[in-house]
Formats: sequence, C-alpha cells, structure tokens
Amino acid sequence: MSWKDNLEAVRQWIRLGQYSGHTAGLAPGYAQANLVMLPKDSALDFLIFCQRNPKACPVLDVLEAGRFAPNIAPGCDLRTDLPKYRVFHNGAMLDEVKELGSYWRDDLVSFLLGCSFTFESRLIAAGFSMRHIEQDSVIPVYETNIACKPAGPFFGPMVVSMRPIPAKRVAEAVQITARLPRAHGAPIHVGAPAAIGIRDINKPDWGKPVEIKDDEAPVFWACGVTSQAVARASLPPFMITHAPGHMFITDLLDAELTEL
Amino acid sequence: MSWKDNLEAVRQWIRLGQYSGHTAGLAPGYAQANLVMLPKDSALDFLIFCQRNPKACPVLDVLEAGRFAPNIAPGCDLRTDLPKYRVFHNGAMLDEVKELGSYWRDDLVSFLLGCSFTFESRLIAAGFSMRHIEQDSVIPVYETNIACKPAGPFFGPMVVSMRPIPAKRVAEAVQITARLPRAHGAPIHVGAPAAIGIRDINKPDWGKPVEIKDDEAPVFWACGVTSQAVARASLPPFMITHAPGHMFITDLLDAELTEL
Repeated sequence: MSWKDNLEAVRQWIRLGQYSGHTAGLAPGYAQANLVMLPKDSALDFLIFCQRNPKACPVLDVLEAGRFAPNIAPGCDLRTDLPKYRVFHNGAMLDEVKELGSYWRDDLVSFLLGCSFTFESRLIAAGFSMRHIEQDSVIPVYETNIACKPAGPFFGPMVVSMRPIPAKRVAEAVQITARLPRAHGAPIHVGAPAAIGIRDINKPDWGKPVEIKDDEAPVFWACGVTSQAVARASLPPFMITHAPGHMFITDLLDAELTEL
Repeated sequence: MSWKDNLEAVRQWIRLGQYSGHTAGLAPGYAQANLVMLPKDSALDFLIFCQRNPKACPVLDVLEAGRFAPNIAPGCDLRTDLPKYRVFHNGAMLDEVKELGSYWRDDLVSFLLGCSFTFESRLIAAGFSMRHIEQDSVIPVYETNIACKPAGPFFGPMVVSMRPIPAKRVAEAVQITARLPRAHGAPIHVGAPAAIGIRDINKPDWGKPVEIKDDEAPVFWACGVTSQAVARASLPPFMITHAPGHMFITDLLDAELTEL
C-alpha cells in the first residue's frame, strides 16, 4: 500500500509541507472539500450565498470565527492541512502558499464545500471512465453565462466542470450524481455548450481540454471553482481559498454523503 | 372553492389581520415555513446552527438584514403575512402578536425553515391517515434528550413531532419523507419513546396526545419547534418566531421540495 492510500500518512506529508501537489486520488474513500475563508463581517452573506447556490457551493462544514479544527476532521488544522492555498485581496490573487502562516486571522470564518472527487469515485465504481484521468490531465472547467443567485455583496457566474459521458448512459450518470447533493449533485446542463455561454469546448477557462467521442455527450456539473469566480467578480477585501485541485481531505467517507 | 383553498385569498385575510388561526390545510399544495428572525450579530451563528442540524432546521430561505420580502414569495411581507408571531427577550416569550409593528428592526435577518405540513400532505396522498387530523386535534410534539449540535451561542434539545404509523407501512413512510430533506426528511426515531427521553407518550410538551393502535408504531420526526426550544435554552437577547402551527405560506409547491 502506498502512502497515498493512507489518510494519516497523506495528512502528515501535507502538514509538514513535504507534499504540495493536487489531491486527486489521495486517501481514496474519504471525501475532499473546497475551502473558503472570509472575515466574520462578510461570512453571513457568504453562507446565505451558499444556501442560495447549493449546487455550486454545497456546505459540508462551517467553523465559527477563529476556529481552525473542522467538525468533519476534528484532529486537523485548516491553517496547515491543505497542500496549497490562494490569498486574495480585493478579488485579486496576492499569494499562493503551502501554509497560511501570518495570513491567518482570528476573525476568519472557514467554509468547507463539497467536491466533485466524491461523485467521480462513484461514477468510476459504476464503470464510467473519466477522460481527464485516462489522459492523466486536469479536468476542463468553464465559466458559464449562468448567474449565481446573489447574496449581500457576493455575485458572479457559475463555473462548471465537464466530463464526456456515453450518450446511452447519461441518464444513469444523472441518477448516480443526483444522490450526492453535498458533492454538487446532478448535472446542471447536458450537451449544447453554447447555450450556457461556452464558446469553444476545446478552450476551458481552467484545466485542459479532453476528447469528446462521437457517441458521447458533454455533461456539465456545478464546480467549486465558482467561489473563486465569485471572488473575482465581487472583490471581497480579503479571502483565502484552496488552490484548484489542492483540496482538504475530511474524515467523512464518500459513502456518508450519499442520500436515499 | 373555499377561500381557504386560494393562496392569494388566504394571504389577504392574514395580511389584513382578519385571520389569525393556524395554517394547517390552508392553500393546499403550497409549502409552509417556520419563521425565525434574529439580529444580524447572531445570525451567522444561527445559520451555522441550521447547517449543523438540517433535520430540525432545514433552510428554505434566508433574507439579508433588513429585508422582509422572501425570495420564495417575492410579493409578501414577513412583518404582516403570518397569522401570529411570538417575540422573545432573553429566551422568555414577551408578546404574541398578529403583526410585528414596532417589533420589526432593520438589523433583523429572517430565516424560513421547512415544515412538516409538506410531508404530511405527501403521506396523506399515499393513503396514510394522520391521527391528529382525524381527531381534529393538534399534533403531539415532544422535547427529547437528543442534543442539537451547538453553534456559537445556540444549543438546546431536538424537538420531535409524533405520528402513529401502521407497523407494516413504517418503511414506506420512511422512504416517502426521506425524499423531502427540506421538510425535515426521514424520521429520526421509530418506536421506543423512552430511548429519546420521552417518559410519557400521552403527555406531549406541545399539542395534544393521540391514540396509538396495537398494530402501529410511534414515528418521530424532527420538528421546527426545535428553534423555540433552542431559544429557551440559549437565551438570545432578541428573537422573533411564528406561533406554533401559524406558519408562513410560501410560493413553493410542496412538489418542488421533493428530491430524486
């Protein structure tokens, strides 16, 4: 068994700063999460934003201001236990760091939001192949023309990830992911990329393009990168997020996120 | 058709203060909601409380401070459009009123939480009889020994409502209500009242007792009255809620709350 399969080993390597790569495939079976940290004075509005946009921002955990040990991973420290963070000032990325150090503030409220890795493992278990994994690449992610529902100062476009799915199995992929509302849930769009403002499917805004075969449809799921697009649109004075793909690994099992 | 079947007529009567009774059975098909209003400085902690206790406090809508027109009923005014409100100071009920009048404050954040009326109508449609409706009574509601997960200053016991269900159809009642997570979802307990601290099933803490027949099990669902028990435990300086049973009627159809 590789260290990559062991939750505690993975966490130790990340905490010590000896691993700062992406977390796809690490500690399989455990749910991973997007991180957003905001000062207390804007945290209520952001939590309302999440409540109004649950597909893009499904809340797994919220920590009161100043707390850094998640309820869904009590032994962890959100200041050190992600491989890579981004620090934003007025919507612009100021720094990318391996631990928060002096960027941490006691008035920060931390949000952990569900991640598509959870439903990917479920799709793979059902025999779907994930093209970006086959190609050892990074999943293509697109900004859309779908506006999130605003809340207080927060607004911006919904961001989606795309996976090619065999046309005859689209319904099945919908049903499998619909049972994971805390991991983005059912797709928000199937086929017709232009209808959501994607001009060129081969030019994603994040990640790398993947091949779509003749018997496949492009299927779009709401994506945790939405919170970064919202930062770019809404210009919050101070905000910390994970770096895309560099997630927090929780104590929750993927299986625990399944709903009836 | 009675005025009771018409959404706009019901709202008009309530708004004018000419109807101040309970809302069970009014405007059938439309989802009703529990109301909680809190000053902005405690609203974040309460929303975190809801996020941690989704069965008792399933969030349908949150309005930014000072707003009173819900997103899920844009033409309404939460200051006048419930038949009866309760005003709490330091956890004690100070007043019961038909409209908020001078109790309204511009720093109040309003929460609308899902209501069991939604799943009752679904159970009735599936041929279950609701004993408290048959008996033209008020549903029995109990404080339990189950602690809600605390958040900031908010803590307290989970409150449950009880419906007797034929033993051979308990599984079906579970499946039907599990599909309504925004209306308290699946039961939290079936049978064995003493195991959740209910000493005498014939002495509910709110409402009236109902008969449980020999071939029935008492089935317990998390209840919106939890927020009032939390007020009594946590003593927030100022809080407004609906009076039990006197709910806000939303524009959402019960059907829209169903998940796959």
